[in-house]
Amino acid sequence: MTVKLEDARRIIAAAEAKADEIGQPMNIAVVDAGGNLVAHVRQDGAWIGSVDISISKAWTSRAFDITTKDLGDNAQPTQQFFGIHTTNGGKVAIFAGGIPLSRDGVVVGAVGVSGGSGEQDHSVAEAGAAAF
Amino acid sequence: MTVKLEDARRIIAAAEAKADEIGQPMNIAVVDAGGNLVAHVRQDGAWIGSVDISISKAWTSRAFDITTKDLGDNAQPTQQFFGIHTTNGGKVAIFAGGIPLSRDGVVVGAVGVSGGSGEQDHSVAEAGAAAF
Amino acid sequence: MTVKLEDARRIIAAAEAKADEIGQPMNIAVVDAGGNLVAHVRQDGAWIGSVDISISKAWTSRAFDITTKDLGDNAQPTQQFFGIHTTNGGKVAIFAGGIPLSRDGVVVGAVGVSGGSGEQDHSVAEAGAAAF
Amino acid sequence: MTVKLEDARRIIAAAEAKADEIGQPMNIAVVDAGGNLVAHVRQDGAWIGSVDISISKAWTSRAFDITTKDLGDNAQPTQQFFGIHTTNGGKVAIFAGGIPLSRDGVVVGAVGVSGGSGEQDHSVAEAGAAAF
Repeated sequence: MTVKLEDARRIIAAAEAKADEIGQPMNIAVVDAGGNLVAHVRQDGAWIGSVDISISKAWTSRAFDITTKDLGDNAQPTQQFFGIHTTNGGKVAIFAGGIPLSRDGVVVGAVGVSGGSGEQDHSVAEAGAAAF
Repeated sequence: MTVKLEDARRIIAAAEAKADEIGQPMNIAVVDAGGNLVAHVRQDGAWIGSVDISISKAWTSRAFDITTKDLGDNAQPTQQFFGIHTTNGGKVAIFAGGIPLSRDGVVVGAVGVSGGSGEQDHSVAEAGAAAF
Repeated sequence: MTVKLEDARRIIAAAEAKADEIGQPMNIAVVDAGGNLVAHVRQDGAWIGSVDISISKAWTSRAFDITTKDLGDNAQPTQQFFGIHTTNGGKVAIFAGGIPLSRDGVVVGAVGVSGGSGEQDHSVAEAGAAAF
Repeated sequence: MTVKLEDARRIIAAAEAKADEIGQPMNIAVVDAGGNLVAHVRQDGAWIGSVDISISKAWTSRAFDITTKDLGDNAQPTQQFFGIHTTNGGKVAIFAGGIPLSRDGVVVGAVGVSGGSGEQDHSVAEAGAAAF
């Protein structure tokens, strides 16, 4: 079980609809069970610095089977995972916008969103994940 | 003038149709005038090592306003650009599959394809570029 | 004196037994006196993002002859080693799970564990180190 | 379908037996369907520079579903993939020692071996792959 291109397109379409609704252009990325990119889109006007971040958020959520929001809470100074953001060649994102995608309780991929506030990114990722 | 997400989707759809026709699943990436990723898809079964290469081919074709096939000819040992593949943090691809996208004689983006032989990659990229 | 493959296997077996006992799949890595990897295993279901971290924890514990838990205490903001996690190409892990391996009071290698909470990682690493 | 730790151990044991037989200590790595490391061993006396290479060979063989020996033939100057070795962050190995692991005609992982001549590495990898 993994995420196929057809799934990724459905997830991205749902995330784009949510981004349009809140009026904030976004980068949206989807990775499969192995953490490898399946698809990415940057909506017109979305930050170019967020291309990489959206992909990193998706990768991170699959790599640790956790939302990047929750990982971030554990990655603050004095918390148990502080420092994790510099591991894995800097590919670990520790702020909101990445959400794992599951089938039957098993994480089989993830979606990552970047382009607005942490709250906006997370809500757009949720809309995407709900379409899986 | 640049490449918008709508353009990227049309280019990718045309490239996918060509890839389906020749029966070789591909990674297809489109970058804009700034060389920044607009969209990427990995067709089911396409090589995971080609995610990065498709993006690099697109970036390279915009970065130097040339097909990666032609750049490759100039990047062989003893040729004028030998060694260029290790510049720019290793982001320069010097084998076929990247093609610039132009409007009125000005390069405003590029498409990069990876997943098959050099000949296949180039022909799929051509199909994509023709849809711009 | 260093850590041989035979030692690494014994350490990993003991760590795996502990991980099984607490029901949390882990990545376990062992490095030798030179800080170079001797062996690594990822238990089925363990986080893929923890492959790199387990190796970094082992390397860090040998590189500075200290547990990564203790190094972490000294690597928080305002502490004496804050910032050390971005040195050495990002290979320094500053959270629990890495433990030096000693013979006659001399550090000759290290074990690194990643896959659960900091407390779990450290306890599994302790089980491994005890088998040296 | 992927490669589990139990599979990786069987593959590594077979590869080690072959390495012992030819008297050349080796690094042996196994990756799963996503290209992520499952297990690695460095036999006593094997080159420390080959830790990374064995992992890169395994990753490469899964990333492009090809032996690194065959990829290498296509990656020489003037060949269709010349330059591929600097893509993917330098993780692409283009010399013998990496072999894909298949189930029912689908590549679900790979083994990578480094520590001797190209011929030796390839034969040890073959012994490992045969045990899958």
